[in-house]
Order: sequence, then structure tokens, then C-alpha cells
Amino acid sequence: MYPDERRILLTPGPVVFSIDNLRYMLSTVYEHTSIDFAEIYGRAIKKFRSIIGANGNFPVFMFSGSGTLAMEASLINILKPGSRVLVVSHGFFGDRWAEIARVNGYDVKVLYSDVGDIVDLGFIAEELSKGGYDALLVTHVETSTGVRADVRSLASIASKYNTLIFVDGVSSVAAEPLDCSRWGVDVLVTTSQKALETPPGVSIVALCTSRAVKALEANNGNVRSFYMRLSDWRKVMEAYEDGRIAYHATPPTHLIVALERALTRILEEGLEARFKRHYILAKALREGIRALGLEVVAKREEIASNTVTAVYTPQGVDPIELRRRLARGNIIIALPLHPALRGKSFRIGHMGSVNHNDIVAVVALLERTLASMGVKIELGSGLRAVQQILLTENL
Amino acid sequence: MYPDERRILLTPGPVVFSIDNLRYMLSTVYEHTSIDFAEIYGRAIKKFRSIIGANGNFPVFMFSGSGTLAMEASLINILKPGSRVLVVSHGFFGDRWAEIARVNGYDVKVLYSDVGDIVDLGFIAEELSKGGYDALLVTHVETSTGVRADVRSLASIASKYNTLIFVDGVSSVAAEPLDCSRWGVDVLVTTSQKALETPPGVSIVALCTSRAVKALEANNGNVRSFYMRLSDWRKVMEAYEDGRIAYHATPPTHLIVALERALTRILEEGLEARFKRHYILAKALREGIRALGLEVVAKREEIASNTVTAVYTPQGVDPIELRRRLARGNIIIALPLHPALRGKSFRIGHMGSVNHNDIVAVVALLERTLASMGVKIELGSGLRAVQQILLTENL
Repeated sequence: MYPDERRILLTPGPVVFSIDNLRYMLSTVYEHTSIDFAEIYGRAIKKFRSIIGANGNFPVFMFSGSGTLAMEASLINILKPGSRVLVVSHGFFGDRWAEIARVNGYDVKVLYSDVGDIVDLGFIAEELSKGGYDALLVTHVETSTGVRADVRSLASIASKYNTLIFVDGVSSVAAEPLDCSRWGVDVLVTTSQKALETPPGVSIVALCTSRAVKALEANNGNVRSFYMRLSDWRKVMEAYEDGRIAYHATPPTHLIVALERALTRILEEGLEARFKRHYILAKALREGIRALGLEVVAKREEIASNTVTAVYTPQGVDPIELRRRLARGNIIIALPLHPALRGKSFRIGHMGSVNHNDIVAVVALLERTLASMGVKIELGSGLRAVQQILLTENL
Repeated sequence: MYPDERRILLTPGPVVFSIDNLRYMLSTVYEHTSIDFAEIYGRAIKKFRSIIGANGNFPVFMFSGSGTLAMEASLINILKPGSRVLVVSHGFFGDRWAEIARVNGYDVKVLYSDVGDIVDLGFIAEELSKGGYDALLVTHVETSTGVRADVRSLASIASKYNTLIFVDGVSSVAAEPLDCSRWGVDVLVTTSQKALETPPGVSIVALCTSRAVKALEANNGNVRSFYMRLSDWRKVMEAYEDGRIAYHATPPTHLIVALERALTRILEEGLEARFKRHYILAKALREGIRALGLEVVAKREEIASNTVTAVYTPQGVDPIELRRRLARGNIIIALPLHPALRGKSFRIGHMGSVNHNDIVAVVALLERTLASMGVKIELGSGLRAVQQILLTENL
């Protein structure tokens, strides 16, 4: 009925949450009009800013919803009706940016990458140089393929062509280096259940530049949603940050409390150490997988993300059956989302509290499971590659 | 820093949650693509239907959001653009229906009640009889004044004039009798943190009649939101109910697990017993308050809700100071939301796990606090009235 608590979740979110983050949700009496809750909320906002490198007091919004809702809320509040947007799509979630923009009536052009690759920066610059684009929408880590966009360069290009850049940081925030204000990321959206190590249910939108704030203010009268109206939420967020109470709609009190605890622990680990840990674990996993003779979907090491790895299944192995067998061994991986990868790949998430023991466990279970499914595997070969990296990197 | 766990929350939501409902959230490994989670989700949907009297397999939607988002999602998915809606407003949340409808471009007419009263049913019927209304939007329990609408009669009137009825059941579901399919309530919206005894963060929309389902299907192409598109969520909900997995945006896994537990306990208490308990506690509270010489905002007993009581403060008592003093005594009440009640009233929530001990405690603390603030109070008079009801009703 309820899952085995020793199960190792290696999906690309929700991830394994620390009990320490969750235990604060056990309070029976948090409520959104008490000062003690306001103080927790205010601290969560401040800590989040420092994690993404949002300088100054730029607005941060946290309300009930998902990453998708955060994407939609950011667009409709900041881009005036009829805006032209350029979407850089590396897969399923890039396409999602495009669909959200289309549903909301924007004029959308999409640049697609090959599966497992990214769109060439020169090509993006060339398209923007034609002029007329109000915004560039990108996905930092494309969860469907495991590739990472070069957000720093993209922000620089967007700035050159006077185009706002929106970054979907759902699978990157707190695991991949990100320095929003310095890089010139105008708008960052994310959610709670990935490397932020909090159960799903919090939409997060952060404005990180003055021009994003100006665009928000200029578009105030055009927002055709009550719930998503960020001008109203802004007053609430500012009140909470000052330890005061305001109301637009009820915030997810218990999740905010868990998030504040998670953010505290993330900052205690230290961002540099945390990014490095994610980098090494991801690299060890990829090397282990390659040593088993499997192919990683991300075409090059420098675009392979630190948080999600998509892998082609060997000839004759059904991903659904593979997932089922791994689940029997108490490790949960994810099936493909990308249409071009269905039936021939699987995904492993490795962010948040995922550690070296988990990486060893999943490569070991993969080895034995694939061998038992008739794939020619040299037992121990994947693990040896993992061990090599972990030992060298002293993790 | 964190609130005292013995604090008694008597706000109109969040309410005091049972630890038993919360403890299931402590799992570190729930995720939305596992069958065990799908089964929990499916059970939550079925149990919710039986609590609101939704017969058959009418769609129920549960996703990350608040009650306000549920209101907005229900409107934009079911009412075609340009629809004419009649809003019956008994206060702040009735006005919210109107504002959400206006923001989304509908043609809105509002019938207002006096503060503490409801709009006359004959007056509503007369307005609907003029024709041209596509929907009637009502609030079951108006949280800002504590009055309850006669949803059964309103549904009957709406049906007579061939108008869809939308009911905001945020402060009523699982505490006030509600029999949606039989009464002809087309659309019911609610959320988790009121009498459903689960932390905030779940938007719930239930369709309870065939004509509501037809309207949803007919309006499919008009929905200008990606996140709120119920045609997509419907596939997800149907999959979960069948124990299968589907994806539109990530659901609030941990909150759904807590909600399923809460719904189980609600059904174990029994709906009739539960409604009666709420009725008696509400009545005892009102009698206690009146015995102290205070005036309840709800103008008549038959329209006073079982879940929230708004009360006029005595001459010279500042509600903010009263709330502060009660909080020092570890009982949290709410300040007014209704513009006409600001500065001269307070609100007490009494739903979910609130029990006779809480009612005795709040009336006792009110007696002593008001006396200490210089109000002429006969000590024990409020409590005697409460005791009389509790003893008579054997609670």
C-alpha cells in the first residue's frame, strides 16, 4: 500500500527527500496569517535569492502550483499580449515553453536541437539578430534528454539583442551553477521537488534584473488570470519578507516550511561543494553506464547535465520491463518522456540528496539486471568505472 | 521560531490538522510515476466523490494550487468566452467569484446581500428568469461573514432556468451537508486545508452532472491556459483512478497522500455524525458568544454556518489587540476580511478536527480577555451557555 521507505528514488524529481526537511511539516498548526509563518516564508525567499544569485531585493514569488504553472505565470505577467518569443527547445520541456506561449496567444518561433544535443549558439544569435523578438525562452536542464544549455552564453546573447531571457531552472536550481543577476538572466522559474529537496507543490518565479521588473510593471493591466496575477502576489511576498501578513490566495504553508529547511541545509552544504558533488556523481554514473556498453543520450560530456542522465537501452531490452525489474530491487528510475526516445531509453535522476552509495547501487543493479535479461555484460565493469571516479575525486 | 504545538488554531483554515493525517507525508520516496502513488490518488478521488455526493464517475480534478485557482480553472474550462454569469455575493469570496469572472472576460452581474445576510432566493429567481445567464456562481459558506447559502434551493432555481451552477465549497465541504448530484450542483470547487483537514496546496474541482461534463467538452478549444486545461488533467485523473500513470504537470504527491488519509478518517467518522458535530459546536459557540453580550454577524440562526463565525467586537475593543491577546493564550483567531467588517469584528473557524474542548477553551479565553480589556462581562456566562448546549446535545 505505502512504498518501502528504503526505496531509492532515482527519478528526475521527486527525488529522495531528507527526513530532516520533511519533519517540520508535521506541525499541526502552521497557518498563513501568523507572524511565525511569515518569518519562515521571508527567510525562504532570502535564501532562495542567494542560491540563484539574485542580487538586491528583486521579487521572488512562491505559491501553490507546479513548475509548469511557474512557467505560465512568468510569461503572462511579463510579456505583453502579442509578444514574439524565440524558444530554444532541446526536448519535451523546451516544447512545453512553446506550447504554453502559444496557448497564451504569443507569436512563437522554435529552434530545435537534435535529440541529445543543444542548439548552436551562433544559430540562436543569428535568429535574434533578425530583430523583433521580445523574449528568449530556454530550459536550463532538459529533463527529457539530460542535456544542459549554456545559460550564461544565452543570457549574454539575449542581452546583446535586447531580448528578455526566461530560464526554466526546474531541473537545475541548487545543482548546476547559476548566477542569475550577474549573468543577466531576467526571469528564472523553478519548483520544489527537484534539487530543492522539498515535496512537489510550490511554483517559484524569480525576477533577477531591473528590466524584468519594469516589464512586469508595464504589463500589469494585461494579465488575464486572477490567481497568477504577480502584481498581487508581489504585495504578499513583500509583506512576508518584512514579517507582515498579506493575502491573495492561500500559500502552501507546510511545503514552504519544508522548503525553508531544505534551503538552509543547501546553504550549509555550500553551493560550490554542492555543485561539485553533483558534477562528480553525474560523471561517475555516466562513466559506469558507458563501461557497461550503454550509450548516454547527451552527445557530449560538456553538455551532459549534473542532474539527469538519459540512456539508450541495449538492443532487445524493453525500458518498461527494465524499470519494473529495477523497482523489484528497490531502485526507481524513470521512463522516457521525449517522443523520439520512447521504447528505447530510460532516465536516471541524480540530484538533491542523492549520494555516492546510490550511484554505486544503481550501477550495480543495472549490471545484474541487464545480465539477467541476456545482455552481454562483464560483471563489475560498470562498478569499476564508477569506483575510479569516486576514488580519484575523493567523494 | 516554530509555533507552539499546543496552539489551538481557530482560524477559518488552515485548521488544526490531525498528526495522523500528516504523518504519511513523512515518506521520503513518494513520486508521481509509481503505481503505489497512483493507487492512493485513485482512492482519494473516489472517497472525495462520496463525501460530496457526486454520483457515477464524474470527473474530479486534484492538482497543485489553492481554492482560488480551483475557482478560476473551473470557470475558464466550462464557460465559453463571453458567457454571462450571475454572481450571488454574500461577501469577500462572493466578490472573488465576480472578480475572477471579470478578469477572464465574462459578462458579470452581481447580486449583493447585506453584511451577514443572504440574497433573497426570490430575487435571484427573478433575475435568472430574465434569461441569458449561462451560469450562477455562489459561495456555500462565505468565510468573511460566516453565512451559509441555501445551495440546494439555488441549484433547483438554476436548473429551472437552465443555468449551470458553480459552488465554492471551500469552507463547507465535509462539514456542511452537500449532495451535489442529487441537488443538481453542476460544478463544485474546494481545497484541502479547511474541513478536509490537509495542509494547503490542493485545488479540487468536481463535476457532478452530465451537463457540466458536456459544457467542459464543448469548451475544450477555448481554454487559454496550459496548466489549468482540464481536458488534459482529465486524462491524468482517469489514469490515476485506474491505477495507471499519466502526466500533465507534477501533482502535490505528499499532500495527496495526507488528503487520502484525511478522507478515510472523515468517512470513518461518518458524514451524518460529522455534520451534526459541526452543527452542535457552531451552535454552542454562537450561544456562548451571545451570552457574553456580543453580536454574531450572521443575522439569523438558519443562515449561520457550521464552520465559521464572524463576531462584532464590543465597543472600544480593537480586533488586532484582541487577536494578539488570545494568541498569547495560545488560541489563534482570524481578523476580518470583509471591508465592511474591518476594525470591528473577528472570526472564529470551527471545522475539521475542532472539538468541544476547543469551543470551551475559546469561549473561556474570550471571557477573561474581554474582561481584562475592560468589557463588562459576567464571568462564566458564556461558558454556561456553551455547557448547556454541549450537555443537551450529548457531545
